[in-house]
Parts: sequence; structure tokens; C-alpha cells
Amino acid sequence: MLTRVKTAVASLMGGVMAGGSNGDHPGGPELPLKFPYSRPEFLGLSADEVECSADHIARPILILKETKRLPWATGYAEVINAGKSTLNEDQACCEVLMLKRRPLESSGPNRNPAARRRSSLPNGEGLGLRDGSDGSEDLTFHYWALFDGHAGSGAAVMASRLLHHHIALHLQEVMEILCTPNLQPPTCLDEEPVNHLLSATSNRALSRAASLRGAAGAPGSPSAPPPTRFFTEKKVSQESLVIGAIENAFKDMDVQIEKEKASFNISGGCTALMVACLQGKLYVGNAGDSRAIIVRAGEVIPMSSEFTPESERQRLQFLAYMQPHLLGNEFTHLEFPRRVQRKEVGKRMLYRDFTMSGWWSCYHHIVHFPLVFPSGSDARVLATIGVTRGFGDHNLRVHDSNIYIKPFLSCCPEVRVYPLSQFEHGADDVLILGTDGLWDVLSNQEVAEAVTGFLANCDPDDQHRYTMAAQDLVMRARGELKDRGWRITNDRLGSGDDITVYIIPLMYGNKQN
Amino acid sequence: MLTRVKTAVASLMGGVMAGGSNGDHPGGPELPLKFPYSRPEFLGLSADEVECSADHIARPILILKETKRLPWATGYAEVINAGKSTLNEDQACCEVLMLKRRPLESSGPNRNPAARRRSSLPNGEGLGLRDGSDGSEDLTFHYWALFDGHAGSGAAVMASRLLHHHIALHLQEVMEILCTPNLQPPTCLDEEPVNHLLSATSNRALSRAASLRGAAGAPGSPSAPPPTRFFTEKKVSQESLVIGAIENAFKDMDVQIEKEKASFNISGGCTALMVACLQGKLYVGNAGDSRAIIVRAGEVIPMSSEFTPESERQRLQFLAYMQPHLLGNEFTHLEFPRRVQRKEVGKRMLYRDFTMSGWWSCYHHIVHFPLVFPSGSDARVLATIGVTRGFGDHNLRVHDSNIYIKPFLSCCPEVRVYPLSQFEHGADDVLILGTDGLWDVLSNQEVAEAVTGFLANCDPDDQHRYTMAAQDLVMRARGELKDRGWRITNDRLGSGDDITVYIIPLMYGNKQN
Repeated sequence: MLTRVKTAVASLMGGVMAGGSNGDHPGGPELPLKFPYSRPEFLGLSADEVECSADHIARPILILKETKRLPWATGYAEVINAGKSTLNEDQACCEVLMLKRRPLESSGPNRNPAARRRSSLPNGEGLGLRDGSDGSEDLTFHYWALFDGHAGSGAAVMASRLLHHHIALHLQEVMEILCTPNLQPPTCLDEEPVNHLLSATSNRALSRAASLRGAAGAPGSPSAPPPTRFFTEKKVSQESLVIGAIENAFKDMDVQIEKEKASFNISGGCTALMVACLQGKLYVGNAGDSRAIIVRAGEVIPMSSEFTPESERQRLQFLAYMQPHLLGNEFTHLEFPRRVQRKEVGKRMLYRDFTMSGWWSCYHHIVHFPLVFPSGSDARVLATIGVTRGFGDHNLRVHDSNIYIKPFLSCCPEVRVYPLSQFEHGADDVLILGTDGLWDVLSNQEVAEAVTGFLANCDPDDQHRYTMAAQDLVMRARGELKDRGWRITNDRLGSGDDITVYIIPLMYGNKQN
Repeated sequence: MLTRVKTAVASLMGGVMAGGSNGDHPGGPELPLKFPYSRPEFLGLSADEVECSADHIARPILILKETKRLPWATGYAEVINAGKSTLNEDQACCEVLMLKRRPLESSGPNRNPAARRRSSLPNGEGLGLRDGSDGSEDLTFHYWALFDGHAGSGAAVMASRLLHHHIALHLQEVMEILCTPNLQPPTCLDEEPVNHLLSATSNRALSRAASLRGAAGAPGSPSAPPPTRFFTEKKVSQESLVIGAIENAFKDMDVQIEKEKASFNISGGCTALMVACLQGKLYVGNAGDSRAIIVRAGEVIPMSSEFTPESERQRLQFLAYMQPHLLGNEFTHLEFPRRVQRKEVGKRMLYRDFTMSGWWSCYHHIVHFPLVFPSGSDARVLATIGVTRGFGDHNLRVHDSNIYIKPFLSCCPEVRVYPLSQFEHGADDVLILGTDGLWDVLSNQEVAEAVTGFLANCDPDDQHRYTMAAQDLVMRARGELKDRGWRITNDRLGSGDDITVYIIPLMYGNKQN
């Protein structure tokens, strides 16, 4: 996130060890930390080692000490930034979770899962999500995630500790359906599949239904009998329930951060990229500008897309157009190719609004600052933030104003599915997850070639090869410190950002699912 | 549009020859027609022939009488529906327009092109757009378009007569830039390229700029000198000006229909699919559910995507969520897999909102009708309309209510560009445009194979081959009338909708551009 978060906020990052602050809203450093800063548990670092890892000159690359700490012989490596923040604001998590089958019918008179969820601390305690000791676990899912923090590491640390529990809680709710092969989820989850015929409820509703029946019936025969298709349900797949579970777990994670900010110091915000392997499918959920790709037989399959002010321009402009008060009479939803000068007021200027991908001209009567500006990878929302999805940032405001950024941010992930069990995978077929520190300097193709080339020179039976490949990848993106800063191949600038990489061999997924 | 427009509205279609009506707003049949119903001028049909073409039993396929009536030996064929409306609600237009270079500087003291545009009747009269007789034309563009009407043919006929003039007017405004090779359009069109440095206009604006400068500068040095890139302009290509011209011509076309409804009877609404060939590039603009594909060396290149309640579900839901009053307390922005029954109120039902692609469950407390319902190709917005982009429909309301549909519809096209002159094209490389009557029953691949197969059996030098291929395609989509209705290959149902097809050979574009 090196170039992507406003200095006005970044200047507060010094206090990040104590949690920092996010905007100048009350509820900052004086509150206790929700979770202390740390590196991922699976790295097994001592306090001394954590401190050494934050050397902005040496920038040591941290790797797994023991391959067995992660499932599927997953490779992992990370490196801190070149000085933009005291600490490494990337966070990572990897877990294997076991869900117990708990039929909906057996959950007693209080069958409201929302209430059940809220009454449980979403940290796995008391839920038996991981104990599995009574041999009753029914569904295993593997989970990997990266969180790229900004303006403090509070949100990233918290999400790395809790998101998987939110996902597990949501999956638990539909587990009975997921564990019944070929069961199409019923629309009403509280009862047996109901009669599909409409009950006569309201004249209005019946009128709508009648209109539709007529239109969908034989031409010109509004009194024809209703065709069956109107009464059929939309087919909901089990897969789309898992997607819905992940989407709503992301929302709950963000709500939890918001609520707990009243009692804890939870600084900043973070992107989130997660992978869940469940019943032979990989679900890749992304909210932010990290990236996942699969490299299969040397070929790249993108598994996520980035959410930035540039890629989400039209969504942001549409929102601002609909709710202009969010711009605080200081910004305009229009985009201009450059900052408009006061002397240009009344002249014909190029612009685009939320409906346009081309440019057109209008007579310009305002000097407001554009909502999205400047363009490309430097683009920010409201002159403040360079990423548009993720968790946290609830109190973040435009510098020296009461304009909140959060309404423009979304915690909703895009979820893509890869049918893992439908393919045979070799030892060199991998899923690569990386924070933007990696992808800012290396293309998909460069990453794929580097990893494929590296693995080809390793013993296929050496489970440590994926961590070594991850280390090699981080090295290629960081580069080496020369007279003119960090440099990579062809004397290009290396990444001065935090860089974190997972390399997950898909072969093991085939074996274990 | 056979299955896609509500019967309550469709029942008014009988009066379509007189213009019909669109909703029950004043300004209907009693007003004069803006344009009388007709078939495309280039077909050269007599009044008798127009009448014969509307035979819903024979469904004669109309083709070009003379190939030379259309540029590039373009093929064209059409057929009327099987009875859903008295008349063929598809309309088509093909023109070659010459734009005169008219420097912005020479347009006198009134340099406001918006004012200039509004003071001209956008029908080409008085604009010299097509005369070219004084040899001063500087820019030729070729234009093909299809309009698929619903609930009357007024909007479709009007758009077929006028859209190209709106596009020409917009292109005229930026012609000086387009005709200067390699000129990057300036941000301010009223003067010479200006100094890129910011003028000190407002403290707020300067503060924003300073924040950005700091953030984009060296880490931790907010007082560092501003890096150059902050002051650079976003590169605007000439191509993106043409896209902007097309996008804004669509808007003006829709505004004109709205305004002229006060004085004329302009019934219904229509989709719009247009192609402009300009300076060696094809610009394909689409608003609705027609489709364009290129078939090059037998391979399909999609040149448009469809805008339907299904494909635009999230945009529609987002709008309804932001502006709930548009739903009139009768509809909900949530989607359910089927109509929810009153007895299910209070139960846990599957749903999705605008943020979700998966399904999740919530406790359901409303019996409102879903904004988008049912699903797939039958889906409608507000139980009324099955297409979400195009022109017209300004007075269309939900049956028996005061809920307007228009706020959910968009007249904005998606514009895709094909760099025609960068490729060599053979005689069988074509651009195919078709209304949904074609694509409802034939896939891209089936269409490509049919056309490629047909052309392979024709003399490559026979300019009539593209019209014959279009005729063959319409025949394949319509099928033949059997005991059980219109049937195509493999006894599948043929299209009972209006079907219109252009087949445009790309080879001629290479020669003429």
C-alpha cells in the first residue's frame, strides 16, 4: 500500500505498535488493544525475532521454519516495507477448521441463527469449531488468508484472527444442506419444501403475478393458464450458499470491527484475500488489491480482480451522484483528466460521469476536487485512500474535514470458484496469493514463470520446495539494496511495500478432498 | 422481445399503427405521430409490400432488393413476429455520413455547442451533414443500427431516423481534434494547452493537493517537492472522445424523445445497437439485448454484452436500495429464488441483495414483490419490462400503480472498439448484428458456423452473398411452421419474435478506410 494511503493519515502510523489511530475520532490510543501486533503464529517467531524482522535496511525475508506447520506443504514468505511504516502491516492466517454437523432441527426452540451467532463470541471459543475431539466433525475446510493493512495494523491483525471464525459460523448454518449430496437448497430454510403454488395473499401481488403469467403465456392470450415456469424456483446451488456464507462473513467481520472500536483500539483498515477449500472446491474471496492466480501446467488462471479507485470509479461516482451530501460540498462526482483551475471555470472541459467510459466536454462551473483523482495506480478516493474494499476505516475522514470515507468503501468480496477436484494436478500446479507489494512490480506472467522455473529445479518430493519458491518470489519483488534504492531485474525499482506470498500446491488438495 | 414485455402494456399494442400508447399518461394517441410506421427505407418497399410483410402466418423474410443500396455490400434480412404484435417492432438504419471540418474557432461568439445543438433540429437538415456537395467533407463515417421496439413502435422508428444525426453532431464538435493525427485532446477545449501547474485557488483545494503530493512523494517527507506525476494529465485518446460522443448522443436521443412526447405521439421504448466505422475503427454501441459478434477466420469475437434484469440485477438493486421511494412501498430490492408466500413471513428465507452473487438467508418480514423477478431470460424489472437499457418508456408505469419504470432504465450504451485497420480481413470475415429474436434461439457458435458454412458455398466475388447469408440466418432462427408451431433444427422451437440481421463484411472496411 506504499503509494496508496494519504500521508496525513500515514503520519499517525508511528503509534501503530500501540494501535495507532484512524482519523481523529474518539476511541483511539487510550483504549486497550483488541489484539497485540504480531507476525503470523505459524512462523513461530520469538519477540526478538519479530523485532529483527522489522529492519527496514536489511529487510530480511521471513519463511516457515517447519513446513509441517501449514497444510498441503504450503509455502509462505514475507518481507517488511522499506520504511513507510514502523511495522509490517501485512498479516496472514492459515487454518484447518472442522465443522460439526449440527442439524437445524436440533438447535432447540431458539432457531434464530442470527441470535445464536450474536450470543457467541466469534473467536471459536465455546463453538467446538476446532476441537473435533469427540470424533463428530463432519466437514473440514482449509483456509488461507492475507490482509494488507493501512494507517495502522489493528484491523489487519483482528481480521487475521477472526475472519475464519465468521466464515465457519456461516457455513455451520447451512451445513446440513451442504452435507446432503445433490440436495437443492429450499427457499424457505425453516420447513420442508413447500407447495410452489402462490397463496392468494394480496390483490396487488396477485395482480403482478397475473400480469407476469399473461406475458409469459401464449401470445395474445392473457387468460391462458399460468405456465409452469412462473411457479418454478430459481435453482440455488450448494456452491452459491457457500459463496453467500463467505460474503456475509465478510460483512459480519466489518460490523464487528465497527462495534468493538467503542471498547478497543483497532487502528486503520485492511484489504482481505482468502481461500477456503471445501468439498473439493476452492473459493477465493477478495476485497481489495491483493491478488490470487492459479498456475496450472505453466498457464495462468486469474482467481481475483483488484478493487481500486480506478477499477471501481463508476460505482463510486454513481454513489456520489445519488448521495451528493457524502461529498460535503468539497468534491465533485465528475472525473477530469487533470485538476481544473479556477481560471477555467466557465470553459469547456473534458469530463466523465458514472455512465461513461469515454470522455466528453461540458461547461465547467465548479472548482471542487474530483471524487477519484488522479488516475491509474495513484488514484485515490476523496484524496485519501487508494483501495476501495476491505475492513475497518470506520472513522477515517478526509483531512481537515467532516467528510467520511467509509460510505464509499465496501467490505463485500468478489468470490470465484475453482473446481479443484475436477482436475488432476501435478506437483508444479499451484495457487499463488500475494499482497500488492508483489503484483506492483511483477506481472502474472513473470510470477508464473518464476515459480514454474524455480519448482522445476527442486526435488518434486521435497515438501519444502513451495516455501523456497515463495522466498524466491519475495526476493524477486523486493530486489537488492543498491545505491539507488531497491532494484530488481533489468534495474527496475523493487517493491518498497510490505510483500507477502503464499504458494499452495494443488496436488495435495486432490489427495485430501 | 416476445416474452419480455408485460401483457398489460402489450394489450395496448393494437393501436400501434396510430402510435399506440406507453402507459396511461396524457400525450398519447390523440397527438400527431412524430414519424409514421414504416420498414427501413433501404428495403425500398411499397405500401402494399409493407402490408404483406406483416403476415404472421407466412412470415415472409424480407431482404435487400439491390445490394448497392447499402455500403460494403452489407447483407440484411428481417422477419415479423408470429403474432405478438400487429407490426414488426424491429427497426433498422444504415447510412454513410460525411462530416465537414468546421473549426471550433470559426463558430463565432456563441461557442456553446450545447446551445448550438439545441437550436438545430437534429434531423440533419440545415447542418450539411450529408450534402458534401461543395467538396468540403473531411470525415466519412459508416453507420448501421438496429432498434428493437416494445409496447409500440414510436420510439424505435424515431431512433432509427435520428440517432445517427445525434452522433454526427457530437462528432462534429470534436472533429478538429479527430482530424489532427496524434493530437492528444486537451483537457480544456476552449484554449491552447494550459500550464499544468495549479493556480492558488482555494485553501481547501490546495490542502487536498498538498496531501496528495505528500503521499505520492518520498515516504515520510510531506514537505518534499511535488512530484511531476501529480501535475500530469490523464492521457485522453482520440478513440475515447469518439466513445464519449456516442455515449452522449444516446443520452440526447433519449432526451429528445422525452421532450417531443409533449407534442407528438411517440409510443413505447426500444433497445439500440449501433456500429460506426470511423478512421479505421469500428465502434459498437449497445443499450439493450441485441447483440453484435465478429466472425474472423471462423472464430467468434463478442462485440457487445446484453443488458437485462438478470445481467443488471446488482445495478438495479443498488439503485432501489439507495432510493427506496422508487419502489412505491410495493416492491423490495431483495431477490428471492421464488415468490414468497404470506405464511412464510417471519421465516428464514434465501435472498440476495446488491452486494451478493451467492445466496444467504434472512428472517423475512415482507410480502413485497421482488424488484427483479423471476430469473433468467424471463426476468422483469418491477414485474413490467424485460430489458433494462434503451430509449423511450418515459411514461411507462407498473400496472395499476404510480410507480414509474424509467428511473431503473438506462439509455447509456456500452461501447466496444475493434481496430479494423489493424487486421487483414478475408471475404468471409464479417460483423453480425442481430436483435434478440436471433440470439434467443441460436448461440454465437451456431450463428458463426451457419454464416461461415453458407459463405463458403458462395462465389467470393458475389456481393449478394451477405444478404443471402442474412436470409439463411433469419430462416434458421424463424424455422418452419409445423403442427406444433415454428420449429428449427432438432425440432427446437423457432423464434416467434421479430428477427432482424445485418451481415457486414469487414474486407470492404479495410478497402474503404
